[in-house]
Amino acid sequence: MDYFKESLHLHKRLRGKIRTGLKMDVRTKDDLSLVYSPGVAEPCRAIHADPETAYDYTIKGNTVAIVSDGSAVLGLGDIGALASIPVMEGKAMLFKRFADLDAFPICLDTQDTDKIVETVKLLSPVFGGINLEDISAPRSFEIERRLQDIGIPVFHDDQHGTAIVTLAALINSCKITGRNMADLTVVINGAGAAGVAIARLLRCVDNPDLGSCTPVKDIILCDSKGAISSHRDNLNDSKKELLGYTNRDDRAGSLHDILKGADVFIGVSVGNVLTRHDVATMAPKPIIFAMANPIPEIMPDEAIAGGAAIVGTGRSDLPNQINNVLGFPGIFRGAIDARAPRITPGMKLAAARAIAEHLREPHAQMVIPPTLDERVAWRVAEAVQAAAEAEFGKK
Amino acid sequence: MDYFKESLHLHKRLRGKIRTGLKMDVRTKDDLSLVYSPGVAEPCRAIHADPETAYDYTIKGNTVAIVSDGSAVLGLGDIGALASIPVMEGKAMLFKRFADLDAFPICLDTQDTDKIVETVKLLSPVFGGINLEDISAPRSFEIERRLQDIGIPVFHDDQHGTAIVTLAALINSCKITGRNMADLTVVINGAGAAGVAIARLLRCVDNPDLGSCTPVKDIILCDSKGAISSHRDNLNDSKKELLGYTNRDDRAGSLHDILKGADVFIGVSVGNVLTRHDVATMAPKPIIFAMANPIPEIMPDEAIAGGAAIVGTGRSDLPNQINNVLGFPGIFRGAIDARAPRITPGMKLAAARAIAEHLREPHAQMVIPPTLDERVAWRVAEAVQAAAEAEFGKK
Repeated sequence: MDYFKESLHLHKRLRGKIRTGLKMDVRTKDDLSLVYSPGVAEPCRAIHADPETAYDYTIKGNTVAIVSDGSAVLGLGDIGALASIPVMEGKAMLFKRFADLDAFPICLDTQDTDKIVETVKLLSPVFGGINLEDISAPRSFEIERRLQDIGIPVFHDDQHGTAIVTLAALINSCKITGRNMADLTVVINGAGAAGVAIARLLRCVDNPDLGSCTPVKDIILCDSKGAISSHRDNLNDSKKELLGYTNRDDRAGSLHDILKGADVFIGVSVGNVLTRHDVATMAPKPIIFAMANPIPEIMPDEAIAGGAAIVGTGRSDLPNQINNVLGFPGIFRGAIDARAPRITPGMKLAAARAIAEHLREPHAQMVIPPTLDERVAWRVAEAVQAAAEAEFGKK
Repeated sequence: MDYFKESLHLHKRLRGKIRTGLKMDVRTKDDLSLVYSPGVAEPCRAIHADPETAYDYTIKGNTVAIVSDGSAVLGLGDIGALASIPVMEGKAMLFKRFADLDAFPICLDTQDTDKIVETVKLLSPVFGGINLEDISAPRSFEIERRLQDIGIPVFHDDQHGTAIVTLAALINSCKITGRNMADLTVVINGAGAAGVAIARLLRCVDNPDLGSCTPVKDIILCDSKGAISSHRDNLNDSKKELLGYTNRDDRAGSLHDILKGADVFIGVSVGNVLTRHDVATMAPKPIIFAMANPIPEIMPDEAIAGGAAIVGTGRSDLPNQINNVLGFPGIFRGAIDARAPRITPGMKLAAARAIAEHLREPHAQMVIPPTLDERVAWRVAEAVQAAAEAEFGKK
């Protein structure tokens, strides 16, 4: 199937992919008096008296804003708010499909960090959670950080969703290949939002006091100029910060140099950067997550020819699709149901483990559940809600 | 029925009144590849190349934001954004029910005029129209005015919706009582958003060159301190502006004084301000629209005892319910379908006339169509779209 041509046709036919619906019909004057004036005054008064009851009387407890400025959309880059709408609608479909959450696209016609932060704050009353999407780094880091205290979960899926699902795949890959997390040397190609978030999660940077979190031994991130090390004089702030918890031996060199002896390769940048010969230089039976879309860093057959024990990609037509849809629906479902004020490292770990443990017997062809397995989101929701309630108490 | 108690119960049971739905299911990997990555890139590219195609490929052409700051909610006043959500959800239901528009509540946690204007601009990409709701005057005037050039219709329903539906009722009331619009003296009690908008529409203030608009002879607005006249030294800017097109004889006095000899009373303020004796001082067979909610300015039987020929109220349990729901769904449907950049005086007049003409034989007990008559919105939509296309050309 020519997905591009078919998709354009489908979008035109549907004129957008989501719609609103009514939870009850409005047929009679009585109906009107109950859902609108005069009856509606009573839930308004109740919420005015006790703001927390907005979760009881309104859509707040089931509603997620998908906020983007269209600055880093899929492989398309900076296409702006209007052109990003189809992606955000698609995301909204997945929230509905997998976690029965009502998500709505909020595409903002600005790329000014302050304005995005302020706008999200101003429109937060009606939402139970905010999913930040396709906002370019490093602005996305700051935007997310500055929104952590608004009282509802704010989660940049391109960072944490990707990191959580990658960790899930890695947990099972270790099990299959008989490795321990604490012994792993990991090379990440791509030092943008996803790469940094994966590094932080795998190194337990944000939860040092969480006894149950085992950091991997070492991670080295590479960008287009090679390894992120103190030898570089062209690092932006977000990359400089990486030096604090990655590349313990401060190695310099190209991706190919750095890959030698590594246990794991994680690609979150561009396709076609590795060959079987690169894989052959890694530790025996390495783990390869080649997640660039639509073209992976290396195709599975090529990686296996180089000795890879496990290969995952972002593609639905290949085994081991490492896809965020396994994460965000359940993560938001659990966080909102717990009324957690934010999504914590403990909740992220719980989500990753729930995804991993959903497979009773993972194997090289299935290190992570299939993307369309509907049970995953509910399992994740349960784990995340439990983790949130352990931290914040039961509401 | 105890609407308040029942409504609270209903809201709790439903946990909000609207939800999202999917225009197609996502069952297979192919589905996922079409509605999301990778296929979705193609409509994104198309919109990036030609922004107008957002109407073809996204929900924009069917989606309305219901924007409020919760500063003037129904009879409840300034209850804030969160507590206003039930009203905005109810409004969204009516958009869906009567015009199949997907409306979404945007309740803003600020009452700062500049911030509201800016936020609406920033979030406008995904919407085909903006319905401003329950924002207190005079801020609402400025907010609406400053948003007229953002390229999509921005309409403050509390002003213009009320004015349009009132004009529709007045057109038919004149027909029934054998009056001409040009001969009418009208007294309006209430000089807030609705009162001012009614006065502007009935006096054709915004469309002086529209040959087809016949201004009423005179309008006198009263607030709690009596008639708005140059004798007053306590008028805010919005009330001072009224002096330019109302109260031609600059009469001073109380509502009761001013009412003497008037043909029409329109109440858009508080209940229980008139008696049959007041009505008896008006011109013979006067027209009374006592629209305060939930308690009208005068009950119909009392007004009729005073000699009223026609009585309308805002209440669903009395004849002649003058309710905005007859207006806004069709107005937005027509305006968005025409892709009008704003809602013009000509479109407002077309809407009022369509509502009036929907009744083939109006009579004193039915000067305006029943609120739940589903055909009205479509008739209004057709008239508004035609008026828009006459002004802006066919898209």
